[in-house]
Amino acid sequence: MVQYAPARLDTSFAALSDPTRRGVLEQLGRSDASITDLAEKFRMTLTGMKKHVGVLEESGLVTTEKVGRVRTCKLGPRRLEEEMAWLERYRQMWDARFDELDKVVLELKRKEKTDDHKNRE
Amino acid sequence: MVQYAPARLDTSFAALSDPTRRGVLEQLGRSDASITDLAEKFRMTLTGMKKHVGVLEESGLVTTEKVGRVRTCKLGPRRLEEEMAWLERYRQMWDARFDELDKVVLELKRKEKTDDHKNRE
Repeated sequence: MVQYAPARLDTSFAALSDPTRRGVLEQLGRSDASITDLAEKFRMTLTGMKKHVGVLEESGLVTTEKVGRVRTCKLGPRRLEEEMAWLERYRQMWDARFDELDKVVLELKRKEKTDDHKNRE
Repeated sequence: MVQYAPARLDTSFAALSDPTRRGVLEQLGRSDASITDLAEKFRMTLTGMKKHVGVLEESGLVTTEKVGRVRTCKLGPRRLEEEMAWLERYRQMWDARFDELDKVVLELKRKEKTDDHKNRE
């Protein structure tokens, strides 16, 4: 299995492991928002929201721009393609692994039947 | 955007945010392995590997079974479907958001051109 930019996957999966941060991304998918808007929407202190936005910004999932006193947040340039690719490959591997185990179980069952049959003879 | 079992996404994305833990999953996709095997393969102490396996086990990504003195690790029952669904929806949302912004930019450019034309007349 190819490793895609491991450090990037570390920061993006870590960014996605928090429900508020996932919620912020969903919100920014609907419209840009200031940190104050986001803090109100998620019933959080400004400091708390700034931290979450900082994590999202570091992972490239959000970009922010300060105009005057207002910092506006938007979705960043990352479309999470590498993360999708990793999960997709994991799923293929998982399916292959369980198919393989199914075959082993079937083979054992078949063998058991044959043995039973032989014992009865 | 629908939230899928938020707590589950928290633990699985957190589990995936570490390169050793992703490596262990890839390894178990090839074959089951004992904690000792995994510790050797990833050049890590037994204690360190036990912690990583513990995180993977808590998130349902790995199951372990102790026979005698050996604890064997296998891929767990989770196929990461909800995580894939979240990323898929995020991508759709991202595409829609950027299409929308493209339209706004195109509209502004068209307006600019018309204004230019008017000014020249």
